[in-house]
Amino acid sequence: MGKLLIVGSVAFDAIETPFGKTDKILGGAAPFIGLAASHYRADSAIVSVVGEDFPASYLDLLRERGIDVSGIEVVPGGKTFFWSGRYHNDLNMRDTLVTELNVMADFQPVVPEAYRDADIVMLGNLHPDIQLSVIGQMDSRPKLTVLDTMNYWMDNTLDTLLQVIGKVDVITINDEEARQLSGEYSLVKAAEAIHEMGPRYVVIKKGENGALLFNDSRIFFAPALPLEEIFDPTGAGDTFAGGFTGYLAQTQNISFNNLRNAVIHGSNLASFCVERFGTERLIQLRPQDIDQRLERFRELTQFDIEVK
Amino acid sequence: MGKLLIVGSVAFDAIETPFGKTDKILGGAAPFIGLAASHYRADSAIVSVVGEDFPASYLDLLRERGIDVSGIEVVPGGKTFFWSGRYHNDLNMRDTLVTELNVMADFQPVVPEAYRDADIVMLGNLHPDIQLSVIGQMDSRPKLTVLDTMNYWMDNTLDTLLQVIGKVDVITINDEEARQLSGEYSLVKAAEAIHEMGPRYVVIKKGENGALLFNDSRIFFAPALPLEEIFDPTGAGDTFAGGFTGYLAQTQNISFNNLRNAVIHGSNLASFCVERFGTERLIQLRPQDIDQRLERFRELTQFDIEVK
Repeated sequence: MGKLLIVGSVAFDAIETPFGKTDKILGGAAPFIGLAASHYRADSAIVSVVGEDFPASYLDLLRERGIDVSGIEVVPGGKTFFWSGRYHNDLNMRDTLVTELNVMADFQPVVPEAYRDADIVMLGNLHPDIQLSVIGQMDSRPKLTVLDTMNYWMDNTLDTLLQVIGKVDVITINDEEARQLSGEYSLVKAAEAIHEMGPRYVVIKKGENGALLFNDSRIFFAPALPLEEIFDPTGAGDTFAGGFTGYLAQTQNISFNNLRNAVIHGSNLASFCVERFGTERLIQLRPQDIDQRLERFRELTQFDIEVK
Repeated sequence: MGKLLIVGSVAFDAIETPFGKTDKILGGAAPFIGLAASHYRADSAIVSVVGEDFPASYLDLLRERGIDVSGIEVVPGGKTFFWSGRYHNDLNMRDTLVTELNVMADFQPVVPEAYRDADIVMLGNLHPDIQLSVIGQMDSRPKLTVLDTMNYWMDNTLDTLLQVIGKVDVITINDEEARQLSGEYSLVKAAEAIHEMGPRYVVIKKGENGALLFNDSRIFFAPALPLEEIFDPTGAGDTFAGGFTGYLAQTQNISFNNLRNAVIHGSNLASFCVERFGTERLIQLRPQDIDQRLERFRELTQFDIEVK
């Protein structure tokens, strides 16, 4: 059983989809990552920041799922990061209505003493300065450092982002971001170019079209589970990262073959996430639900052709 | 070893991609289907029509690959169907520059006597009247009838198309066409609606994002092989259909499990097709190329998670 250190935003989200809307609910990358990872046998901790307005019940929720929240700083008098968005009818596009960074704007992360030797570090999507600071606080190089990021940081803080990319083992980005970062249209060529920047594993997420794992010339593909209805895509990428790193922290095996399994676990958890608003489904999830759906992934992809 | 009857256009294609352009080359659905299927142990025949301008060397090419071309009518003084198109830079969109139906406009298909008991009938994309006529000429219901069609026929001859759909076992269409035909956005719901129209198997092709096979509540997914470069997408869907039906004619097993394999074979052949202009790559292909790439499909998708 390994230690998983998660850095990421903790936020209030207000979401509108064609199926309904929410008031401010628990959001941000870190809760999705942490709750997804909490379904695996690993010691997890979150490094983040919230304001005084952040409900104790949300911290309790994370604590009850076994997540160490001592690294979540509560800023007296501060306001928690707030994001609001509205999805289009096909759910593949969304408009951001509000982004209030609040306490996130001046966040200086402090990694708890007990997690400076974490096996797996999951750098959730936020300012590369914060990701770099967390990397610098580790006692030694973790077994595996995983970076999630997005086009915003490519547009605005590319130099720092490239420093971070140079220090990680795995990067997870979507297809358009992979193209932007590499300048290559072909995802195979994009992954090659990104390997050159540092990460020996490149995960390219294609939403409802699945995810590709590249490791030099080796490629693995995990489909997204075809669902009758996608209710709310918010947090699907973070949930993928949580299932991916939670499984790796549990198994402590960072070979390419086991990363294949981790991609399936990440995709599996993400398929639940989108069935309800926010983190709701991740919280209700039982081990047997996870196992049953893993079996569906097997049925979905496994075949048996005799190659002569 | 089974008999495969193919009906489809035989044409001249003139293609422009970002990588180059061709003069009039061998095109149309039937040659792609037939050449792909010719890599399997099956007796195949094409029913189609060409003009007097169609080179004997193209017919010889098909004959040399073991395809019965006695059902390809040559119209004295007629001109062969001609299509010209230009692909956009990302190859996902194309503009049709020229469509000259010529002899295809009045085509009355005649199924050769020896193929009226074919095991598998592959109805390539063309006018539903022609597809219906071929179905009507069979001595008895084939083991499996596979229909390929497109949005053009949904827009213009929906009633006849629905008659054809009601008589086939498998339909292959792309994701947008599945949505148009069913009125459902979710592909899972679209497949359910299309099952109700007749076909017990629904194959939804998503181009570089792979293909889904639906059979009631069962789903199988085959990815497209990630390629460094796609050179010319023309005929990829027809090649998929040829690999799919060629493999089924060889194995004579139309269970869901074997259709999974057939979808992988179809995807495998299609991955070769797009590497060169037109049918060029399908003609050069050796059995060991096919086997090696099947192995890549296995590596791409197979994983081994212990489900407790």
